[in-house]
Amino acid sequence: MILTVTLNAALDLTYRVPRLTPHASHRVRDVSERPGGKGLNVARVLAALGHRTTVTGFAGGDTGRQLRALLAGAASPAGAAAPAGDAEGTTEPEPGRVTDALVTTAGATRRTVGVVDEHTGDTTQLNEPGPHIAPEEWQTFLRTYTGLLRQGTEAVALCGSLPPGLPVGAYATLVKEARTAGVPVLLDTSGEPLRRGLAARPDLVKPNAEELAGVTGTTEPLRAARAARRRGARAVVASLGSDGMLLVTADGAWRAAVPQRLAGNPTGAGDSAVAGLLSGLVEGLPWPDRLARAVALSAATVLAPAAGEFDAAAYARLLPSVPVEQTGTG
Amino acid sequence: MILTVTLNAALDLTYRVPRLTPHASHRVRDVSERPGGKGLNVARVLAALGHRTTVTGFAGGDTGRQLRALLAGAASPAGAAAPAGDAEGTTEPEPGRVTDALVTTAGATRRTVGVVDEHTGDTTQLNEPGPHIAPEEWQTFLRTYTGLLRQGTEAVALCGSLPPGLPVGAYATLVKEARTAGVPVLLDTSGEPLRRGLAARPDLVKPNAEELAGVTGTTEPLRAARAARRRGARAVVASLGSDGMLLVTADGAWRAAVPQRLAGNPTGAGDSAVAGLLSGLVEGLPWPDRLARAVALSAATVLAPAAGEFDAAAYARLLPSVPVEQTGTG
Repeated sequence: MILTVTLNAALDLTYRVPRLTPHASHRVRDVSERPGGKGLNVARVLAALGHRTTVTGFAGGDTGRQLRALLAGAASPAGAAAPAGDAEGTTEPEPGRVTDALVTTAGATRRTVGVVDEHTGDTTQLNEPGPHIAPEEWQTFLRTYTGLLRQGTEAVALCGSLPPGLPVGAYATLVKEARTAGVPVLLDTSGEPLRRGLAARPDLVKPNAEELAGVTGTTEPLRAARAARRRGARAVVASLGSDGMLLVTADGAWRAAVPQRLAGNPTGAGDSAVAGLLSGLVEGLPWPDRLARAVALSAATVLAPAAGEFDAAAYARLLPSVPVEQTGTG
Repeated sequence: MILTVTLNAALDLTYRVPRLTPHASHRVRDVSERPGGKGLNVARVLAALGHRTTVTGFAGGDTGRQLRALLAGAASPAGAAAPAGDAEGTTEPEPGRVTDALVTTAGATRRTVGVVDEHTGDTTQLNEPGPHIAPEEWQTFLRTYTGLLRQGTEAVALCGSLPPGLPVGAYATLVKEARTAGVPVLLDTSGEPLRRGLAARPDLVKPNAEELAGVTGTTEPLRAARAARRRGARAVVASLGSDGMLLVTADGAWRAAVPQRLAGNPTGAGDSAVAGLLSGLVEGLPWPDRLARAVALSAATVLAPAAGEFDAAAYARLLPSVPVEQTGTG
């Protein structure tokens, strides 16, 4: 089972409007709702790839209830409905399904609103800050998390921003717990939580170029990735937008990108890359193959019509065509 | 008791952002949630004026549950919490409180999102379309509505747009039921629902200049208001923005406006005017006094810092200063 952690989960709303005009009133033509937050996006892609996946983190209020209902109803690749687990995560996950082990909070789960301008195709994003997490809720979460790590978790991904109220070293704590339990841990966050998390020695971090520069002070990706390794990460995968991805491990450095330039919506491409890296890890693939999978899944997400989904046919077509090249001097 | 009807109620969200930039990502600085839809806004102002008020219409789904919880927690002018009534409206309303007699629907109540740009102070509005109302839900509503009309309703206001699925003549039906029950009825809608509603002979309609022109084909307000009377309304109050309001009855025509030009947020000003007209009606005020109250409440709403609230001190100060003048030839 793969575990993903989303401390600041969201109910993602997408509004389609003919044209977004500031200071005007708009009738929304179409509304879609889905469970959001990076770890939930990663879990959805993992489930679609056929992996048993459990999600934990926080959910609360009416928006949290909506999120969990959507999660329970999310179709597996075969189209079957996924049953929700309980908050203690004791339900055995099934292949291709997402098991709900979210911890209930008093505060309400945040919403995000993406407004798609049908004229330009561009999206304007509005993200609520999220509920305040009480110290005792964090303690409840830690018990749930450490319990899950000892219930057959093969790998864990820690994803996204911290909600108000959590200590800035929250991810560092979670990285240490995973290492103590012997579970490989991937960290995908930014800023001070990433800086602190690095010092706890995660197996992998997956920053984009900007996040990597922010935490290392170095804008050149290869130098910055090596700096991140010196700060504690065993491996670094940096996403470089249309330039693909850069991997740096103890054994060397590799670059990979899809051959052609892609037009589409990059929302969720980074989360699909995380799913690719994690699935490759638990399947025991060599590092270059994991990188190729991450790049192909990421590209297939840009190409999908719905934001954050991936185009399975494009993924199957792109995967064998992703060139992975060694770079630097390792 | 005053009854207000909101067939397309909403959970109103207000997001404050430093500056709204299309196609960018924004962290929302502050989120506020409140029960919305014109009839619910009217009810809140009536309650603040000390009137026993009952709301009906439709609510459903998680957003409907949130709306009802907010309605139940809405403070009276004295700061006391209002208890929610049940869906059949059998709870006796108390002065200064809003009693919940909303009918539960299978579909979820819509959201509206108002994005306030803190730099310009302007608001960009995004309105979801609302749930589809099934024919049997409409029949349930009609039974609730006609029951409420016979349970001590002194006046009824029918407010806002129709949700998908309702017949375009829905308001005409509700106007007829009110007339049959001997309850004075105010209609505040636009377009074809207003046109059909007029033919059912409501006691009062309260269009703005644009809505009035849309339904009569006449842009000059006095001529248009008289045309609306010929189409069936016993009285017409047209809101003319900064030019104040125009009243036309069988006995004559009057204009009223606040002496000075106002700067502020006009959101909810029309709903406050409806509350002024209804409260004046049940208190037996002469028509010019009702008009002055509507104008003063509307102005006090523009002046209030929070959208849709009214500034009670400004209302008390403005009310005696609103000049009401006879106009036209009656």
